[in-house]
Amino acid sequence: MKKNAISPTRQENYSEWYLSIIKNADLAEHSPTRGCMIIKPWGYSIWENIRDVLDRMIKDSGHQNVYFPLLIPISFFEKEAEHVEGFAKECAVVTHCKLEKKKGKLIPISPLEEPYIIRPTSEMIIGEAFSRWVQSYRDLPILINQWANILRWEMRPRMFLRTTEFLWQEGHTVHQFEEEAREEVKRMLDIYSNIYHQYLAIPVIKGEKTETERFPGAVNTYCIEAMMQDKKALQAGTSHFLGQNFSKASNIRYNDEKGEIRYPYSTSWGVTTRLIGGVVMVHSDDDGLVLPPRITPYHVVIQPIFIREKIMAFCRKLKDMLETIRYNGNFLKVKIDERDIRGGEKKWEWVKKGVPIRIEVGEREVEERVVTFFRRDNHYQKIVEKEKSFIENLAKILEDIQNDLLKKADKFLNENIKRISSEKEFYEFFKSEGGFALCQFSLTKEIEEKIKKELNVTVRCIPLEIPKEEEECIFSGKRCFDKVIFARAY
Amino acid sequence: MKKNAISPTRQENYSEWYLSIIKNADLAEHSPTRGCMIIKPWGYSIWENIRDVLDRMIKDSGHQNVYFPLLIPISFFEKEAEHVEGFAKECAVVTHCKLEKKKGKLIPISPLEEPYIIRPTSEMIIGEAFSRWVQSYRDLPILINQWANILRWEMRPRMFLRTTEFLWQEGHTVHQFEEEAREEVKRMLDIYSNIYHQYLAIPVIKGEKTETERFPGAVNTYCIEAMMQDKKALQAGTSHFLGQNFSKASNIRYNDEKGEIRYPYSTSWGVTTRLIGGVVMVHSDDDGLVLPPRITPYHVVIQPIFIREKIMAFCRKLKDMLETIRYNGNFLKVKIDERDIRGGEKKWEWVKKGVPIRIEVGEREVEERVVTFFRRDNHYQKIVEKEKSFIENLAKILEDIQNDLLKKADKFLNENIKRISSEKEFYEFFKSEGGFALCQFSLTKEIEEKIKKELNVTVRCIPLEIPKEEEECIFSGKRCFDKVIFARAY
Repeated sequence: MKKNAISPTRQENYSEWYLSIIKNADLAEHSPTRGCMIIKPWGYSIWENIRDVLDRMIKDSGHQNVYFPLLIPISFFEKEAEHVEGFAKECAVVTHCKLEKKKGKLIPISPLEEPYIIRPTSEMIIGEAFSRWVQSYRDLPILINQWANILRWEMRPRMFLRTTEFLWQEGHTVHQFEEEAREEVKRMLDIYSNIYHQYLAIPVIKGEKTETERFPGAVNTYCIEAMMQDKKALQAGTSHFLGQNFSKASNIRYNDEKGEIRYPYSTSWGVTTRLIGGVVMVHSDDDGLVLPPRITPYHVVIQPIFIREKIMAFCRKLKDMLETIRYNGNFLKVKIDERDIRGGEKKWEWVKKGVPIRIEVGEREVEERVVTFFRRDNHYQKIVEKEKSFIENLAKILEDIQNDLLKKADKFLNENIKRISSEKEFYEFFKSEGGFALCQFSLTKEIEEKIKKELNVTVRCIPLEIPKEEEECIFSGKRCFDKVIFARAY
Repeated sequence: MKKNAISPTRQENYSEWYLSIIKNADLAEHSPTRGCMIIKPWGYSIWENIRDVLDRMIKDSGHQNVYFPLLIPISFFEKEAEHVEGFAKECAVVTHCKLEKKKGKLIPISPLEEPYIIRPTSEMIIGEAFSRWVQSYRDLPILINQWANILRWEMRPRMFLRTTEFLWQEGHTVHQFEEEAREEVKRMLDIYSNIYHQYLAIPVIKGEKTETERFPGAVNTYCIEAMMQDKKALQAGTSHFLGQNFSKASNIRYNDEKGEIRYPYSTSWGVTTRLIGGVVMVHSDDDGLVLPPRITPYHVVIQPIFIREKIMAFCRKLKDMLETIRYNGNFLKVKIDERDIRGGEKKWEWVKKGVPIRIEVGEREVEERVVTFFRRDNHYQKIVEKEKSFIENLAKILEDIQNDLLKKADKFLNENIKRISSEKEFYEFFKSEGGFALCQFSLTKEIEEKIKKELNVTVRCIPLEIPKEEEECIFSGKRCFDKVIFARAY
């Protein structure tokens, strides 16, 4: 019987399996700081790859990077009522600026006149700057972005998915016209959707949040939702239309062409290190992580079976040749694992780390000038190819892996979205197989609360790409226009 | 008479001139968070360029990037006495994790059982991880680096040079052998020195700090020191040999080849956003910032004199051609400034921002197919060249600018280092022209304190590249071996 590298398996305990994948791939680990993780080299390198691609897209769409302070004066949060409501329960507060040793213990001294909040998001501190930068319609739009660390005290932390501190990018823009701001919100949602499809090989559903799940202070919150292998949803990125709420709260005003004073429209949007949690949960199998070729730290690992000069020379030459191949705009990254440890241990380490292509080099390969390799997405199948043809095909093989991962995830998503047409069917669905339930819904808050309480299921979004039709709400029977997706979520 | 764009000039008030350069180049501005700055797009883009180059060098020398938590449990600081001593007076302390509204004001509630310090540096939290990661000599060395924000409460903040929050990279390594750790410390110092020479066009002196200026807890602190245009020193980067101090404090131990339990040797090293302050202070003139071509956001700005289709077409074609030119491994970045504002205003904006090459395109240029351009380092001299030959020469022109900036800074440094052979001469030097005073010194703490008090002059370093000789200390007359550099410093 086949024995798996990861224990427990997905079937046995999905939640433990997830943590075991992270541990075995050496992506991250818990830290002594409650709710925070240490992102280790393999995990951070994946983050850098995703960040570089997204950063390029953000810049190419006209945004500029900036950096604002970590600490926000507490009084800034008093300006927008819903906003403070939303974050007050999870704020890290800096109250002192010195330490003193008393009886061998360090005690905070020098209380600050005004305490600071560590940013849980930066609307309020960026709003203050916008209020100075924006005077005339000629100053608009302003399109900025920052890569930063964020702190929200997490009650139930979970590595990559919910951590007290996390890394993200946050875009903040301000516009003269409502329409222009709304276009910006959609443009960024599209960019996020593209990153997921094209780089993470994860299909997502674009939609709008209901009022319950809206960003505190936003007029509309749009999101992308992905399906994990346990059929639960992961909110994978958000883009907010803030209307004039934050302009008014931060007193951002401009003179229009006629000299009238007006409030501009603003937006904000972000994705976080949660991206990596999504990759882990969508692609991994019971032998470890499976990385899409477009975001992997190494595309190929070459494993010499014996550390002998003839074999090593073959490996080095192969590496040099492979590194001249371009894939997705960059040269391939190739690693020779020369460590003198047991071959099985070495092999499984790279399987668990999810490297797309693993090559084994022994006497036979050198003599016959062939490449023996394994695709991570199907790693029990050994493939032997002539060296020359392997080199010619490698970029295509990688792109096949990338496409196959997306196709597989897409198939899984489509198999597990179900149109639900009655309340009874809805309850049966979530009490049995579960998944994404697409149904007509009147957006009634009380019903959302009841369903959440009874099934731990929430409205993930009102999908943007499903046309609105007037039908009866499956719960209330009321005529309504919206179709929504309900699901359990991370 | 020539009128300058920056007021006051360097001669009139160097310190105000510095702030005026930052403001006029739109690099950064003060924020409502005390002692912190907002890094604006132009400033942040320079930081990204430097970061990318340094990150590449750090990785190429075998280090891997990671990310550790921002918050460090207060008890971790109790472990190393000198270390806590060094940072206790400038620590931001997080004591609460919620806010509540009382009488319309937000009040911190939910005090934490153990407060956290926002990292003023990460030795202690990384040390805890090393103590788990290191078990055997086979686990050594560990070579990691992180890009992060740091908080040290600053009494006299100064943009880019000393801010309460700043950005940096911090490398942390742990080694089996003392010699290997010492080599690592020197290797990183060399990398910093190379970045300054080759990219920032700033000559630096490599040296060791005296005990007074050592990193809290280090055995040896090495640094690079640069000279600003007011002849003051800027500590531009540091690399610390920590011996076994931090291994002992964090209980990092390993079994050696014979099974004996030993403490490894560790190092740490970092450079900060202060790099940008150095660039501003070394190269700028009384008309604004002057950027070395290797770190500029744009290499060339094309300024159409009239917004007419024929001229714009010429500009766009020129831009396309220039952007196919490689300089220093990357394609040139070129901007056409099409804004419909006064030509003079436009011109001075780019002069003040320090773009290396500014091109003006009018009717004549289009008709004669010539390029009229100005080098920022000598921007009153107009140069007219045939389009074809300009394109052929541009990479060389940029490299000439890069080299000329370094040569000029190098000349200034050499003119203002003086060998001093008596106490009297020393006092005269710092009461008149000032600069870097190179002199024989017995490293006596009391003398250092006296000189600091009387002249506000400190030992910047014991230069590594000046041979040690036994001579008399110019202050105490004692026979001693060290030559040091004294200077006023930022």
